[in-house]
Amino acid sequence: MESPIITLLTDFGLQDGYVASLKGSLLTVCPAARLIDITHLVPAHDIRAGAYLLKSTYRDFPAGTIHLAVVDPGVGSERLGIALKTPDHCFVGPDNGIFSWVLHDEPAWNAFSLTEKAYWRTAVSNTFHGRDIFAPVAAHLALGIPLQALGQPCAPLARPWTEPRQENEALWGEVIHIDHFGNVITNVTFTVLKAFAGSSGFTVAAGEILVAGMRLTYSNQAAGEPLTLIGSTGHLEIAANQGNAASLYGIRTGDVLRIQRS
Amino acid sequence: MESPIITLLTDFGLQDGYVASLKGSLLTVCPAARLIDITHLVPAHDIRAGAYLLKSTYRDFPAGTIHLAVVDPGVGSERLGIALKTPDHCFVGPDNGIFSWVLHDEPAWNAFSLTEKAYWRTAVSNTFHGRDIFAPVAAHLALGIPLQALGQPCAPLARPWTEPRQENEALWGEVIHIDHFGNVITNVTFTVLKAFAGSSGFTVAAGEILVAGMRLTYSNQAAGEPLTLIGSTGHLEIAANQGNAASLYGIRTGDVLRIQRS
Amino acid sequence: MESPIITLLTDFGLQDGYVASLKGSLLTVCPAARLIDITHLVPAHDIRAGAYLLKSTYRDFPAGTIHLAVVDPGVGSERLGIALKTPDHCFVGPDNGIFSWVLHDEPAWNAFSLTEKAYWRTAVSNTFHGRDIFAPVAAHLALGIPLQALGQPCAPLARPWTEPRQENEALWGEVIHIDHFGNVITNVTFTVLKAFAGSSGFTVAAGEILVAGMRLTYSNQAAGEPLTLIGSTGHLEIAANQGNAASLYGIRTGDVLRIQRS
Repeated sequence: MESPIITLLTDFGLQDGYVASLKGSLLTVCPAARLIDITHLVPAHDIRAGAYLLKSTYRDFPAGTIHLAVVDPGVGSERLGIALKTPDHCFVGPDNGIFSWVLHDEPAWNAFSLTEKAYWRTAVSNTFHGRDIFAPVAAHLALGIPLQALGQPCAPLARPWTEPRQENEALWGEVIHIDHFGNVITNVTFTVLKAFAGSSGFTVAAGEILVAGMRLTYSNQAAGEPLTLIGSTGHLEIAANQGNAASLYGIRTGDVLRIQRS
Repeated sequence: MESPIITLLTDFGLQDGYVASLKGSLLTVCPAARLIDITHLVPAHDIRAGAYLLKSTYRDFPAGTIHLAVVDPGVGSERLGIALKTPDHCFVGPDNGIFSWVLHDEPAWNAFSLTEKAYWRTAVSNTFHGRDIFAPVAAHLALGIPLQALGQPCAPLARPWTEPRQENEALWGEVIHIDHFGNVITNVTFTVLKAFAGSSGFTVAAGEILVAGMRLTYSNQAAGEPLTLIGSTGHLEIAANQGNAASLYGIRTGDVLRIQRS
Repeated sequence: MESPIITLLTDFGLQDGYVASLKGSLLTVCPAARLIDITHLVPAHDIRAGAYLLKSTYRDFPAGTIHLAVVDPGVGSERLGIALKTPDHCFVGPDNGIFSWVLHDEPAWNAFSLTEKAYWRTAVSNTFHGRDIFAPVAAHLALGIPLQALGQPCAPLARPWTEPRQENEALWGEVIHIDHFGNVITNVTFTVLKAFAGSSGFTVAAGEILVAGMRLTYSNQAAGEPLTLIGSTGHLEIAANQGNAASLYGIRTGDVLRIQRS
């Protein structure tokens, strides 16, 4: 049998020992686990960006992978931890909306709140549930412990930013992530866009820019010029060929975008 | 038998090939090793920060883990390399104080200077002992070579910044690390603080701030307000709930802090 | 048999899910692969820097390692993918010059363009060939598929920046990378420098600085003072002991340097 794969997604950054403590905690419970970083540079406390980054990657991993996601501004407060199972993947983290896109996209799931302390670290701190609760729970899942052993069935929190809305002949979306290249990623999926625009043309307005039409790929536009395309995760992106669209056009996470039929 | 775990902590950064060269060198000697990054973003040449980051993470790894720590401003000078063994862990790196906190916290250890060239790379450069000496030595330990084969017994260098001092009714500590979230981590451990303050209240002064009392966790304070707490590694921290305490209050690594009974 | 090692070098950055998608794609095809990052912080679209970083690390890995290198400003355009085999290593990536230094340094190689879709992901996007073509191909090589199954034999693209030129009694080189410490790495190798300068002294001019003579290591110069040395990869470097040479002397990637016999 292959060693179980556990992915890690956090806002812990890379300059401290927090990610290493998570990994040590995982390996202490499940020494055979193989640990793959998704990213640790989610903007601090940005649950929306974390949720998108998880959504955009988890399906690329083999069935059976366990995904540990810790963006947790409410650590030490009342929010519960959660473990979630979809047909092919498992997820562990705080129940604060970090799994909103998974819940949006997956047809079926089971969720359990993390209340059974037998699967936690013996000493639990007030400030580092990633190391003390979520990592040991994920590692126990990797060992084969069933989800229902971890606590009670529950309804996980889903945030509203997975859904664009249609109003006054326009489709209103939201910027959910700016990537390393400055590409602007929105909550408008190909499916939603197609349902709205059908076979007619459309324009996309955000920040200081209005873009008409779509391209298939970045290099189908002159260097430095704006374009929209469906990115590799199936979401509408605003980009600039070989340029940084977010800084060129003054667009930030959370900004609204307006799509209109032309 | 599980594959041996080797952790890596350096100030090499992530934009070059230096970390990869370390890993290639480790895998060439011990192909079965599993390599886990602690961090490679220790501020350049900052032995104090590196020592704290190692201390704050190594105990989270399973017994038998080997820790390779290379923050080495004196590469090519007279400083020797060292291998250190505590009851549960092994450490390899330059003998420049990077293991100060390990020596402070562990009840017992053995240390050997690295002089036996049989365990080095065949060609040793003047500028990259991490790849050419420390990594091959760590990998040989992972293969089961005993510590005493590596060189002569020695007394490792311990730096003074592990100890706060008491003077004029105050406890004087030092800022040893600023983390990714701007939390200010000090050399004052819970044990030292309790011995000083007993059951009385106390105030903590550092940078432009004076904080009274302690909290259990970040969210026990209003957003953006200052607090002190014992962090997940057992050290006194100055923090701001969902804010960056270091930049809000003008605090940097090396700054002095004064604790007074109230 | 040991698990195959696959290294990854990209300009994807660490803040997104792109690197994780590569890794998921690799593990889906070859679940036993061990994945080692070279770096993901190659400056965006900088093929020259990527080529140098690959050259400076790949030989440190065990024979049989597969190196996946994706710096790919032309994704979706006409450029082909390529797989390259040298006596000890395999390489996969876009055929855009990223393997220029490998071709420069290696005595023999075979190359095949990637045209056989059986080894690609079932769905190939227009914008993410790393995940959809290069990663699955690298993973199939790790499974033992022979190179010639991947496509047609081809002559890979080699860029001119691997060669300094001699003119008017001077040797003219180029800055190919600035490392994390600010060390300035040039395309002048020890071999080329020796052939030019023989046993005579020489001076190196770049940016705002003129340096005479060579040092063996950084600490052979006073702190903050400029020096030249042969770095750990065999290339001429301009450095400042415990200082950032690139910012101190105003030197950037692509800058010209002039070497003259003294």
